[in-house]
Amino acid sequence: MSNTWSLSPDRCFSPEPSQRALARELYISIKDLPLICPHGHVDPTLLSDPQAQFGTPADLFIIPDHYVFRMLYSQGVLMEDLGVPTRDGTPVEQDHRQIWQRFAEHFYLFRGTPTGMWLADELTNVFGVTEKLNGANAQTIYDQLETVLQQPEYSPRALFKRFNIEVLCTTDAATDTLQHHSALQQDGWTQVRPTFRPDAIVNLSTTNWHDHLQALNERSQTDITSYATLVQVLEERRAFFKKMGATATDHAAVTPYTARLSDAEAEAIFARALNGQADATDATRFTGHMLIEMARMSVDDGLVMQLHVGSWRNHNTTAFNRFGPDKGADIPVQTEWTRNLQPLLNAYGSAEGFRLILFTLDESTYSRELAPLAGHYPAVLLGPPWWFHDSFNGMQRYLDQVTETAGLYNLAGFNDDTRAFASIPARHEVWRRACSNWLAGLVVMGFIDDEDAHAMAYDCAYGLAKRAYNL
Amino acid sequence: MSNTWSLSPDRCFSPEPSQRALARELYISIKDLPLICPHGHVDPTLLSDPQAQFGTPADLFIIPDHYVFRMLYSQGVLMEDLGVPTRDGTPVEQDHRQIWQRFAEHFYLFRGTPTGMWLADELTNVFGVTEKLNGANAQTIYDQLETVLQQPEYSPRALFKRFNIEVLCTTDAATDTLQHHSALQQDGWTQVRPTFRPDAIVNLSTTNWHDHLQALNERSQTDITSYATLVQVLEERRAFFKKMGATATDHAAVTPYTARLSDAEAEAIFARALNGQADATDATRFTGHMLIEMARMSVDDGLVMQLHVGSWRNHNTTAFNRFGPDKGADIPVQTEWTRNLQPLLNAYGSAEGFRLILFTLDESTYSRELAPLAGHYPAVLLGPPWWFHDSFNGMQRYLDQVTETAGLYNLAGFNDDTRAFASIPARHEVWRRACSNWLAGLVVMGFIDDEDAHAMAYDCAYGLAKRAYNL
Amino acid sequence: MSNTWSLSPDRCFSPEPSQRALARELYISIKDLPLICPHGHVDPTLLSDPQAQFGTPADLFIIPDHYVFRMLYSQGVLMEDLGVPTRDGTPVEQDHRQIWQRFAEHFYLFRGTPTGMWLADELTNVFGVTEKLNGANAQTIYDQLETVLQQPEYSPRALFKRFNIEVLCTTDAATDTLQHHSALQQDGWTQVRPTFRPDAIVNLSTTNWHDHLQALNERSQTDITSYATLVQVLEERRAFFKKMGATATDHAAVTPYTARLSDAEAEAIFARALNGQADATDATRFTGHMLIEMARMSVDDGLVMQLHVGSWRNHNTTAFNRFGPDKGADIPVQTEWTRNLQPLLNAYGSAEGFRLILFTLDESTYSRELAPLAGHYPAVLLGPPWWFHDSFNGMQRYLDQVTETAGLYNLAGFNDDTRAFASIPARHEVWRRACSNWLAGLVVMGFIDDEDAHAMAYDCAYGLAKRAYNL
Repeated sequence: MSNTWSLSPDRCFSPEPSQRALARELYISIKDLPLICPHGHVDPTLLSDPQAQFGTPADLFIIPDHYVFRMLYSQGVLMEDLGVPTRDGTPVEQDHRQIWQRFAEHFYLFRGTPTGMWLADELTNVFGVTEKLNGANAQTIYDQLETVLQQPEYSPRALFKRFNIEVLCTTDAATDTLQHHSALQQDGWTQVRPTFRPDAIVNLSTTNWHDHLQALNERSQTDITSYATLVQVLEERRAFFKKMGATATDHAAVTPYTARLSDAEAEAIFARALNGQADATDATRFTGHMLIEMARMSVDDGLVMQLHVGSWRNHNTTAFNRFGPDKGADIPVQTEWTRNLQPLLNAYGSAEGFRLILFTLDESTYSRELAPLAGHYPAVLLGPPWWFHDSFNGMQRYLDQVTETAGLYNLAGFNDDTRAFASIPARHEVWRRACSNWLAGLVVMGFIDDEDAHAMAYDCAYGLAKRAYNL
Repeated sequence: MSNTWSLSPDRCFSPEPSQRALARELYISIKDLPLICPHGHVDPTLLSDPQAQFGTPADLFIIPDHYVFRMLYSQGVLMEDLGVPTRDGTPVEQDHRQIWQRFAEHFYLFRGTPTGMWLADELTNVFGVTEKLNGANAQTIYDQLETVLQQPEYSPRALFKRFNIEVLCTTDAATDTLQHHSALQQDGWTQVRPTFRPDAIVNLSTTNWHDHLQALNERSQTDITSYATLVQVLEERRAFFKKMGATATDHAAVTPYTARLSDAEAEAIFARALNGQADATDATRFTGHMLIEMARMSVDDGLVMQLHVGSWRNHNTTAFNRFGPDKGADIPVQTEWTRNLQPLLNAYGSAEGFRLILFTLDESTYSRELAPLAGHYPAVLLGPPWWFHDSFNGMQRYLDQVTETAGLYNLAGFNDDTRAFASIPARHEVWRRACSNWLAGLVVMGFIDDEDAHAMAYDCAYGLAKRAYNL
Repeated sequence: MSNTWSLSPDRCFSPEPSQRALARELYISIKDLPLICPHGHVDPTLLSDPQAQFGTPADLFIIPDHYVFRMLYSQGVLMEDLGVPTRDGTPVEQDHRQIWQRFAEHFYLFRGTPTGMWLADELTNVFGVTEKLNGANAQTIYDQLETVLQQPEYSPRALFKRFNIEVLCTTDAATDTLQHHSALQQDGWTQVRPTFRPDAIVNLSTTNWHDHLQALNERSQTDITSYATLVQVLEERRAFFKKMGATATDHAAVTPYTARLSDAEAEAIFARALNGQADATDATRFTGHMLIEMARMSVDDGLVMQLHVGSWRNHNTTAFNRFGPDKGADIPVQTEWTRNLQPLLNAYGSAEGFRLILFTLDESTYSRELAPLAGHYPAVLLGPPWWFHDSFNGMQRYLDQVTETAGLYNLAGFNDDTRAFASIPARHEVWRRACSNWLAGLVVMGFIDDEDAHAMAYDCAYGLAKRAYNL
């Protein structure tokens, strides 16, 4: 069995023959459409430097990927032993073959998980591995991957073309020079676009907020000493991002709280923040206000607004102190959308041309709050299942709980939201297959006809994301 | 394809042959049972006037139906352009053919939605349309519908009989004269019954509360200047409704908060309300108290108590100011039943003959709170999936999450809860099919036998609702 | 039909032939594995006394089982008429044949419920009943059961062996002498182990808390007049339980609130509690602190910590006053894990050898909070679907919502959590079948291969529970 590792060509499809046949037909009709990647966290330097490579197998698959190392950590493997870099000076494993060996010996932990499916897809379909990874064959497979990764056809730029990516949007701080995007554009790579993410500035409780503000001062060559100036600088930065190809902004918050402050209150809070005297309430109110301001700017400049809500970051303080953020210790919390978003939506939810894409980690809000909001407000679209819910079952729940109320056309299609460039096709693959299977289910249950199913499959795979993000 | 528009005779049934065959068998055994419609919002004048007609196709399908126009609004079609009447003087589209054209061009938005299924069922099975609606055939179909709607066999009373409705309960304000029900009874139409809904009086925060109270003063020929008098008048109005055929009351609230006030506190709050000085807390406490009072009255007079909880009404203030309530902008909020209902249930949850039917918009409470409450308290029954959840998937989730704990016999069967009279059979159809498919699933999975399945199918379609509402 | 009552050999398996065939194959591979029962509420005296018997059919199936009598109560049958003992002197039905008759006449209420499935399994497979129970055959079946229950092969000890139970853990108060476990060990029955449950002591709001403390004073021969002494006594009691075979502790709370108090605050609260002056906040903070203390002790002594959260006990005050606790009136409430558990997990969530098994009644936390916590913290495992969710659909939802993020190996396997000894095999049967069907689904959908499925089936049925509880 393990000697002929390959994924089923009918994976993600119902075993019931009539549904499977139709799912396969729908999938075939969309599988070769280009990939639209409107939101993600790929490092642009991977593409701006034509000579960039992925490094060792451990560099590619383990060390930077919190989806992977958190699972081993949860079963007692130390992050130090997986080479995850520390910021407190604690030494970590340097031998990448040893890191790979530990990973291989624990590969069974990913049975039945989306990460397991993505890894299998990458290893077999992108990198040509033919045996299921385990402790016994770990070094042989390492050898094979090491060889492959040095070949020019496995460079990031080569894979970008092989993956048939039509557009890939990165996520970039408000203070970013976008020099890598500039370099890409000079090479004719206009299909890599930036996204404006000002969280570090507008969230007053950001660690080292003053440093971020200072960086913004320098980038804008402005001394931002008032709220009014801040707003003006942010507008200018958005204009710069837009000129550099951005079509969207992105915003993250623990809750979707929004509230319109008076200019006087906004100035007062900002002044306290400058003096290091802003408290938690100040931060909450200011962020809630700035979300509305960001919506206002989107109405003006046409950038699509994304809002990712509900992650309690860095839950494990000890691990955070040693390893820093993004180490698999971000845990979702309950989210309340209806009351919290009302001020923003009352102000701009029906504004012409405005688009607000919502992402949740709280699936209980799909049918209760998000689908009704998207099914009413012209501005609101729903982003795809996010993070922990970017999985086959997560997609099934999302499609079943959202579309009956919101319809398909209030969805924003798919995005892979990944730092792991090589996993992009694997992630879109699950979405395209899950949608094909879902639509086939609607047909065999008599809810839609074949004509509708084909149109909807195209939109799920391609049309919705292009339209939602003006790509 | 679009030239032979018809719904699958096996819609809502699993494609798996053994389950499908049994689902079909169960469905056939119940499909001709009369419709029990114990809760809804059909205007009684539609039936009390033997000459009443439905108007144009736009009058019937679009202008009054917020399920329909909210979906077009969510995609940027103005409500004014769909003929939705305004209360601020803004002119709206008067050309019903143009309204129909816009609807037809956006009909694809309803793909895979329950509204789409109901519309298809009505257009094909009630009104004889044979082509799938689109922009190209919109006017031809309009012609056809216009002709049909003028025929006597398409009058509301004729369709009532054709639909095989055994009983239809309307929802009526506490101040209603019930003159239309009286007229119906004089014509022998005793199968149309009123339901007592006193929300506008007992919710002190109702817009124009004083006007509603004044109307109650007039109706009762009493000057309601105290809480004690209010209680007495409400008891008298309930008695009148009961005499006029009502078997139930209905109550809506944002939360199911209940609390028994002392008479002194109730009087004090009512006095403040009369003086226009009641605040939000007063309103909350008074409503919470009046729910318990309504339960007490139900114990006395035997009227079944319905409680619909969790809708945040008129979320879009701008739209509310222009168009008024019930325009598709009611968004659900989280609901907490366990703590909130305890005072009411401790007082009357085990009272002999008392029945309390609960409806939620928060599906996360099905398995967590509602099924355990219904599975313990003799008084509690669970209403069917409501509003956004009145859909095939909504029914699946409800049946799967509720019945294992509550059993089937703590459910209240189905009600269509609709203003759209012509959609009544389409809505019951989905429920009957969904139940047949669910029961067939229980049989093929070995959870129940054929004998149980047939008995349960009958109860789902007919018996439970009759029993729950004493019809 | 009712003359050949038997459960389908393929119950719980999908009707789709390829999935069913594989589910059956997987089930056959695990069905004869011994039962691991690491958490439950079986009375140890049932096993410590070799002569113990189950009593009448009503004693066995109805009177002590709140899963059963709550369903009849919810449909208007008085608990008094089912022989449920009262504590206020109200007389109850003494005629066990009459109790059985009422049960039989209402047996249809259990259609499609897990209790119905367990009862059917017990009656047919354990006790040899061959007709589906109803009012007509009630007395005949009573006769049959009465005869069978007097035979030695139906004694608890005989059934323990027939059930192939490898280990059964009871749940015991911190003050328990464990004399029955001692007697069992002297008979060589070391496979019955105690579990340390100190709730009555550490929850200051326990009814009659002073009596429980006094009992602990006596058991420990210590005068517990300070928090420091309490901690010391609890450590000694844990050591005693461990010596008597315990491998785990168990803790119940309405919320998973945890907070580390200073010693001074802990002492102050304890002093107020001794004086009868502790308020609700004191109780909450003290319990929240003691949970962290219990975690600390587990790090030290290696006992696995179980935490059952979210039941609002004794919701029906009238019934509680008459019948006492555990009468089917415990209703779940919403649970928040992410914020509440952070203090405990930051202290000990990554401590070597520590294991914390979480149980929830709020399914909305499966994918949102619990799976991400288990998928990060080395200490956290997720307990199986609990109580109302211990059902086929409950298991499906659990497996679908938890494993994609947490993986299978952060689960604690199954436990039956039952007082009803004779229902133990029936409960494990549903789990083993549900897991087999779920794994077969993963294979036919292409998510795992056959090799993985067989390994995972073994772990679901046997390996996970043994490992989680160090059994």
